[in-house]
Amino acid sequence: MINQVGREIPDELLARYGKKGFEGSYARDDEQYRKAAPTVRAVVDPKQEKQVGSIREALEKCGLKDGMVLSFHHHFRDGDYIVNMVMEQVNAMGVKDITICASSLGAAHDPVAALIEEGVVTGIQSSGVRGKIGEAISYGKLKTPAIIRSHGGRVRAIEEGDVHIDIAFIGAPTSDAFGNARGVGGKSDCGVLSYSMVDARYADHVVVITDCLVPFPNFPPSISMVDVDYVCVVDEIGNPAKIVSNAVRMTKDVRELKMAEYCTRLIELSPFFKDGFSFQTGAGGASLAVNTMLRPIMEEKDIHMSFAIGGITKPMCDLLDAGLVRNIVDAQAFDLGAIESIKNNPRHFEISTSEYANPLNKGAFVNKLDFVILGALEVDVDFNVNVVTGSDGIVRGAPGGHPDTAAGSNCSIIVAPLVRGRIPTVCDKVVTVVTPGEAVDIVVTDYGIAINPRRTDLIEAYEGCGLPICRIEELRDIAYSIVGTPDEIQFKDRVVGIIESRDGTILDVVREIKEYEFVEE
Amino acid sequence: MINQVGREIPDELLARYGKKGFEGSYARDDEQYRKAAPTVRAVVDPKQEKQVGSIREALEKCGLKDGMVLSFHHHFRDGDYIVNMVMEQVNAMGVKDITICASSLGAAHDPVAALIEEGVVTGIQSSGVRGKIGEAISYGKLKTPAIIRSHGGRVRAIEEGDVHIDIAFIGAPTSDAFGNARGVGGKSDCGVLSYSMVDARYADHVVVITDCLVPFPNFPPSISMVDVDYVCVVDEIGNPAKIVSNAVRMTKDVRELKMAEYCTRLIELSPFFKDGFSFQTGAGGASLAVNTMLRPIMEEKDIHMSFAIGGITKPMCDLLDAGLVRNIVDAQAFDLGAIESIKNNPRHFEISTSEYANPLNKGAFVNKLDFVILGALEVDVDFNVNVVTGSDGIVRGAPGGHPDTAAGSNCSIIVAPLVRGRIPTVCDKVVTVVTPGEAVDIVVTDYGIAINPRRTDLIEAYEGCGLPICRIEELRDIAYSIVGTPDEIQFKDRVVGIIESRDGTILDVVREIKEYEFVEE
Repeated sequence: MINQVGREIPDELLARYGKKGFEGSYARDDEQYRKAAPTVRAVVDPKQEKQVGSIREALEKCGLKDGMVLSFHHHFRDGDYIVNMVMEQVNAMGVKDITICASSLGAAHDPVAALIEEGVVTGIQSSGVRGKIGEAISYGKLKTPAIIRSHGGRVRAIEEGDVHIDIAFIGAPTSDAFGNARGVGGKSDCGVLSYSMVDARYADHVVVITDCLVPFPNFPPSISMVDVDYVCVVDEIGNPAKIVSNAVRMTKDVRELKMAEYCTRLIELSPFFKDGFSFQTGAGGASLAVNTMLRPIMEEKDIHMSFAIGGITKPMCDLLDAGLVRNIVDAQAFDLGAIESIKNNPRHFEISTSEYANPLNKGAFVNKLDFVILGALEVDVDFNVNVVTGSDGIVRGAPGGHPDTAAGSNCSIIVAPLVRGRIPTVCDKVVTVVTPGEAVDIVVTDYGIAINPRRTDLIEAYEGCGLPICRIEELRDIAYSIVGTPDEIQFKDRVVGIIESRDGTILDVVREIKEYEFVEE
Repeated sequence: MINQVGREIPDELLARYGKKGFEGSYARDDEQYRKAAPTVRAVVDPKQEKQVGSIREALEKCGLKDGMVLSFHHHFRDGDYIVNMVMEQVNAMGVKDITICASSLGAAHDPVAALIEEGVVTGIQSSGVRGKIGEAISYGKLKTPAIIRSHGGRVRAIEEGDVHIDIAFIGAPTSDAFGNARGVGGKSDCGVLSYSMVDARYADHVVVITDCLVPFPNFPPSISMVDVDYVCVVDEIGNPAKIVSNAVRMTKDVRELKMAEYCTRLIELSPFFKDGFSFQTGAGGASLAVNTMLRPIMEEKDIHMSFAIGGITKPMCDLLDAGLVRNIVDAQAFDLGAIESIKNNPRHFEISTSEYANPLNKGAFVNKLDFVILGALEVDVDFNVNVVTGSDGIVRGAPGGHPDTAAGSNCSIIVAPLVRGRIPTVCDKVVTVVTPGEAVDIVVTDYGIAINPRRTDLIEAYEGCGLPICRIEELRDIAYSIVGTPDEIQFKDRVVGIIESRDGTILDVVREIKEYEFVEE
């Protein structure tokens, strides 16, 4: 079938997974469904303890067996040790056919690629898939198609029961021996444990792994003991230096500064910029510069932000400290400044990823978002955005909260240079649709700005503002005039990845890449 | 059948409810079960709003119909307006056969008794049942047997699916228009919303009723918007003067002071009184006096409490402020001092009732409790305690957290005067078993102290301590010698109430009282 964004989704695939093709961002609004539920083991006897001597012992007590689904969070990012520590034991136990359901996977998890080749891991469900795992997927090594979901889509899948987690592993900077776990307080602080909160409630078994055991009760907990089966203490849960970067890059790049200026002006002139507005921005150079540029305007007009959300960086925390932001609601700390802020500023709050972006609960934070600034690998003339497959067709990105915030916000702004090297960013047709064009409102490039024709309100608001606004086809034409019309990437027929929409329908598929040569990244 | 505490439970009743008789406090330890789950309505479209104009509109939008289960919390205690406001509309809509599942019901809810007579309300599930509702139950007016559960037992029943809530009503001191609700901040502060937290997650429909609407986001929330369908603003959710009493009674009663001294000494001499011990006490005169008496001993021995838990009063908050208590984990504020404390002291935390006492989650706070001081209407020579039926056989009490803390703690201490008026507290056989004797460790009266023979460790610890320790039969004999052997209360055969053990098995039944005369309370 051809879905609402014009992508052909094989009927056989839809039948196999019991899925529909994408029918629109709000197609499931008001739908009633029964939530999923875990099978849990009661701890009635107060003499029961939870601490185990090793990850192996935890796996044994949880009854690890072939075919299970194991879940992980990625708050430690490139510094994560948990996935590899657990999977090493899984491999040692001779277990096969494991599905890894992670909030994201990156270069830290390259060893998993070998487990894919050996059939230990046969399923991957994740937002980000980078490094060797991405290559293994794109070259057809994984037995089943990888399922790529947004952050909101992942928790939806868990809460709706599309994926049932057998064992959730939660790397926690601190925990007490009964499983009250926090994102702060140890030698490997990660700020929040937002991605794990849903896993803890919906997984049958929950194992907390920490390198800092603290006295009971470890309060206030990110993860409550009432959901935790076992606690395992290890030497190190991650490499603090790689968990987050201390250095937030303040851009001096002229292209980035120009795009940041465009963004700032677009926000200022929009009908949503008023006291109590809300905002999400990323950690990219242009995004961060917008924070800095907005500040004097907010001060001058006495406009305060009601809440900032998302992955959080220090510049936003500075606005909180300055009183210009009333609340930060944090689903991921992107730098050490954010971690310090959540420890010290009582208006900086941890939220669950369900509260952040689950489209099928009773209303997530993204529904209340005014502005979001997002990146893109490609944007096409239908405003569809690709943030997953690279220009070589290989899976090397992550939807993250991109489709969630785009769908929920009043004004989603994509910021990207018009060309990168020899690659046009604005193009006829993105390789992979990750965020549907109907949810994308403005595209800002260094060569001009395109506004989605659906947003007549915005087009009207910007009339005569002097910004270089044009049709998106014009941006494509400029891009192609600079770098030429790109060749189509050659794929085989076999589907190796499924891009699930945040509501669980299928937005696009990723097909196996034709092997010219194997490129080591 | 005769259950483990020697009570005859009609087989027909067990079959009708698919229940077992009580088999021991820890019989279900390690049991695996699938948790319940609600059917929810997705709020995908960010344009959806939740505020409704009236309780009637909320009921209509939730699809109220005959036979539904409506839930309520009792943080407003005798000042609650919510139950009556909602039930008045239910009655006005002509709906019948409603079951009220409340965390407690009291004199504030006397109007419900008339709805019982009219068949609007045909089921009551609650911890406390006092006032006219209790009389209506005991005199056989309710169509189905009332189900009396402890606080932990109630959330277990919800989480295990024994009761499925159709609509949960949450009276909230503050809420934003999207349903983030808090126990503090308005004109009717109640401190915490612990009892509602489980209702919000397991009910199909959730309605927040507030008299103080605040800007979005109302953070940190006790109840998250992701679980809330509708928000209704009313003039008043309760009478602040009756929500909590400002005056904590510091007893000057000689009997109470003597019992408090016994308790304090028993705690001090026990093997569990050491740095990091944990403690729950009630709001009674003797209980509060123990707080005061323990303080100099803790100071002298440099012993700190790791956590205090339960219904919280100001004297405990004073110990927190003084640094003698490291954490307060609060499931109910008993006075204004506790409400002020949770607003101002960052080591005073709100917990859900599941975290407090659910016996079938993966380990609740009561499992980590060292000492609890509890009251009793009656204690028998098997140490069984009755806190539900009065000396006239009428339902007029509440298990509350009594069975939960007794089962979880290392040392449960019952404090009660040996006789009250013409009624002996220690007796041959309690009218109703609410807390099984195996979970009761020490009984302290003004005439002496009895230790459960099962607790050989405690008996040994107190050898030669000089306290008036005796056999419980001796206490009974003294009581009977003062007031005479009590007559047995006359009941009919019909079961009007079921005392459910915290794990869902049946501990005892309450039968219809023989009507000599109807006594207005």
